[in-house]
Amino acid sequence: MDGQPGSGGGAGGDDCDAVARAFVEYYYRTFDANRGALAALYGPHTSVLSFEGHAVAGAEDIGRKLAQLPFDQCRHSVSTVDCQPSPSFPGSILVFVSGNLQLAGEDHQLRFSQMFQLVPNEQGSFFVQNDIFRLNYG
Amino acid sequence: MDGQPGSGGGAGGDDCDAVARAFVEYYYRTFDANRGALAALYGPHTSVLSFEGHAVAGAEDIGRKLAQLPFDQCRHSVSTVDCQPSPSFPGSILVFVSGNLQLAGEDHQLRFSQMFQLVPNEQGSFFVQNDIFRLNYG
Repeated sequence: MDGQPGSGGGAGGDDCDAVARAFVEYYYRTFDANRGALAALYGPHTSVLSFEGHAVAGAEDIGRKLAQLPFDQCRHSVSTVDCQPSPSFPGSILVFVSGNLQLAGEDHQLRFSQMFQLVPNEQGSFFVQNDIFRLNYG
Repeated sequence: MDGQPGSGGGAGGDDCDAVARAFVEYYYRTFDANRGALAALYGPHTSVLSFEGHAVAGAEDIGRKLAQLPFDQCRHSVSTVDCQPSPSFPGSILVFVSGNLQLAGEDHQLRFSQMFQLVPNEQGSFFVQNDIFRLNYG
């Protein structure tokens, strides 16, 4: 089973995997430590976040949505990371994550899965164009 | 909670949701009845499937991979469908699915999540450019 953290499932080679792993590590570390800082990862207008079926667009509203989630402390543990190149723009990639989410004060971890589309920006880095998050109730 | 089948979480409006729902209904019905027919949904060369961390590219190899999965009969039950427009090409969409998978002869259902990028083709329909599948072990 390919359940090790950071195991890449993409066909885009090492670059794709390396970008995906670095992004995922940064994203969840920032989420768990300082959620408000995530807004800077999204584009000002076109980026879209769907969180448990609720969609918001643009970095400002996405940052507000993340800040207002109904829990304070949480810790993500990543189980799998897959990535594939996307034809959106040269260098765009799709990142697909599964893992566990531990909320403060809760006994049980929650399973989650999440996907991102990362698109290169003019600074040679990436921004999050698409973000879809779901808890996996079983 | 937005856990009803077909609940759309996209910001792309009714068109995006309708395409996503129709695709998901067709995809899993075909998967469960005649898996080999799914190859026709993928592009001949560039499409990529990552199935539990194993990536294959092109309709022919993807069809072979799906045909050789180590189970015969299965039944997918879709729990949630989210979609967002993708900037790849006008009309491209990202589809994110969570649900349960019942394998013949197994007592317990498996949780799964899966994402697709659908890209318009010249016939006015769509093909699957990207497909990432993961079981959600809890």
